Amino acid sequence: MDALPQVRRTDGQLADGRAITYYDRPDAPVRSATDLRTDLSVATSSELRWDALVGEWVVVAGHRQERTYHPRASACPLCPSTSDQWTEIPERDYQVAVFENRFPALTATTSAVPSAAGFDAPDGIAGGRCEVVCYSDRHDASAADLDPDRMTLVLQTWIDRTEVLRRDPHVQSILVFENRGREIGVTLDHPHGQIYAYPFVGPRDRAIAERVRTYRERHGRDLHADLIAAEVRSGERVVVADPHWVAFVPFAARWPFHVRIYPLRPVADLTELQPDEISSFAPLYLSVLRALDAVFGRSMPLIAAWHQGATHGDRTGSHAFMEISGWRRGPDRLKYLAGSESAGGVWISDVPAERSAAMLREALIT
Amino acid sequence: MDALPQVRRTDGQLADGRAITYYDRPDAPVRSATDLRTDLSVATSSELRWDALVGEWVVVAGHRQERTYHPRASACPLCPSTSDQWTEIPERDYQVAVFENRFPALTATTSAVPSAAGFDAPDGIAGGRCEVVCYSDRHDASAADLDPDRMTLVLQTWIDRTEVLRRDPHVQSILVFENRGREIGVTLDHPHGQIYAYPFVGPRDRAIAERVRTYRERHGRDLHADLIAAEVRSGERVVVADPHWVAFVPFAARWPFHVRIYPLRPVADLTELQPDEISSFAPLYLSVLRALDAVFGRSMPLIAAWHQGATHGDRTGSHAFMEISGWRRGPDRLKYLAGSESAGGVWISDVPAERSAAMLREALIT
Repeated sequence: MDALPQVRRTDGQLADGRAITYYDRPDAPVRSATDLRTDLSVATSSELRWDALVGEWVVVAGHRQERTYHPRASACPLCPSTSDQWTEIPERDYQVAVFENRFPALTATTSAVPSAAGFDAPDGIAGGRCEVVCYSDRHDASAADLDPDRMTLVLQTWIDRTEVLRRDPHVQSILVFENRGREIGVTLDHPHGQIYAYPFVGPRDRAIAERVRTYRERHGRDLHADLIAAEVRSGERVVVADPHWVAFVPFAARWPFHVRIYPLRPVADLTELQPDEISSFAPLYLSVLRALDAVFGRSMPLIAAWHQGATHGDRTGSHAFMEISGWRRGPDRLKYLAGSESAGGVWISDVPAERSAAMLREALIT
Repeated sequence: MDALPQVRRTDGQLADGRAITYYDRPDAPVRSATDLRTDLSVATSSELRWDALVGEWVVVAGHRQERTYHPRASACPLCPSTSDQWTEIPERDYQVAVFENRFPALTATTSAVPSAAGFDAPDGIAGGRCEVVCYSDRHDASAADLDPDRMTLVLQTWIDRTEVLRRDPHVQSILVFENRGREIGVTLDHPHGQIYAYPFVGPRDRAIAERVRTYRERHGRDLHADLIAAEVRSGERVVVADPHWVAFVPFAARWPFHVRIYPLRPVADLTELQPDEISSFAPLYLSVLRALDAVFGRSMPLIAAWHQGATHGDRTGSHAFMEISGWRRGPDRLKYLAGSESAGGVWISDVPAERSAAMLREALIT
């Protein structure tokens, strides 16, 4: 087992007090630039409202209406700073940089609004944090363009952020994700992802935990493990696999190109990954991203997200995995969430899982 | 209480055997035209797949990839037929027409695919039906342009379709909805809505029923009624009300313009509405639709959907309501579902409910 390349972490602060952290390979320049901006001011009030009818929290963040919206490339806030232009990243170059979102949905001061008549909203829910993870100082790179070492550094960054954020007693779950593509509303082209540390467990992860628990009670077995085993045994929906990871289109795929990437060994969250798992992730993940772009010969609008076990309490049966939703259903057609999906929560899929898996496998080797 | 205007219903059949039903005021022409098309052929295979990880059904309908996509206005399949052009509606004019979708997600032959290893998928789930409801023979009308009598006829149609569809023993829930706006993926401009009769209860309605049940156990009271009473008492999120209906932006609004319209008297589904409730709905609903369009001076992309109680079994605590999601958050900006909403199921709202309610109230009177 090869040793993992080392990471040098440098913690700093932006002019308005937000944290910035650089993740570099050890031979990178020292990170010591000071943010000299004097014009930063943002109201970051946000609040949690309990949707009593459905039993879910909604984050209300009115200040986000003012967030940066499709800036010119020369005004990109995620590029390194230059002598002419201060950005969110004071350094003149960087490898991976993480900072607190200037327009965060959640902050340490986010609190729950008691609904008028008190409708059984859970008590003591407050806080949270939103971070931006910049993958490269090159504005026009995409995650699929990163070299494997940089992608590994990004994974090492996700792991460290998960480790840091889960120490916050208010944080109950951590979603590491990337949105890609103007077609699905991405307002900054620079290659980056985000991390939302929620002060609750979201409905999707709650549903999964509930299913895992029920399955264990009924069968004495692990649902994730049995689903993975069934996919590997059948093979018809597997896109790519290696000794540590498997990527497949799930049997009941929702999006036109829907891929789950699982570490074969169950880990509750990214912090439990071992060195050989970490180093083999990047080549596999990059090959999936490139296949997604190759399917229609153009960039696939997508959301890629790590589902991780709840940060506190019982993590039995948690099995972290990445879920990628690719929204293009044809060269010029997107999947939209219409009445059935949006109002009813019932997904209508136009592309059977076996077909999209075959298209992705074919795109892998071209 | 005025008597409701009468409806004349005429049942017919399209050339390929699909049902068509006309709903007219009694003075309309007799509906007897025959569909003479000979070129209709569509594979309508669809299947239900159980997403064992989340515990939800996904409808897989590969044939829908071929569905009609932004036709020229002169080739609109929802316009009346002419001597030159056969459409889905054989008549030369119509008031309201309902037919089975040519590219349905669900049909009587839809069945559940046993997943490879059987992961506790519910038994005996099959069938369903998808209908298209055309509100007007005018291609360029929108629901907001309808006169109140036509809107009442549309409501009477929804009621009759609910009555008909709930007799099907396979149908467990009925979603009556409209998608409006190319911005959110609508592929036919002609004013129309849809009805999905599902052979199961979707996740959103299941979550609501579960919350209602828990609330009743805990407080001995009805959750819907208490939420409505709290909104009416506070008034700050009420958009418009009359003696039978109230429209408000819910406390934990998810979409930029999110409106729930409730009949004040609890009804499990539309078939329980009484004449005075039916006749007062149209003016109120049209005023909400027009306010949504007026807010930014341009058509609001939206989904409007009736949530109704499950068709069979215990309907205690069911309280039908309409939910409208307006997706425009600024004159030129849409709400998108990004990582938090799409992957995590956690909604981030940019527009506090009180603000959008005030904007809608102001738009009502201009």
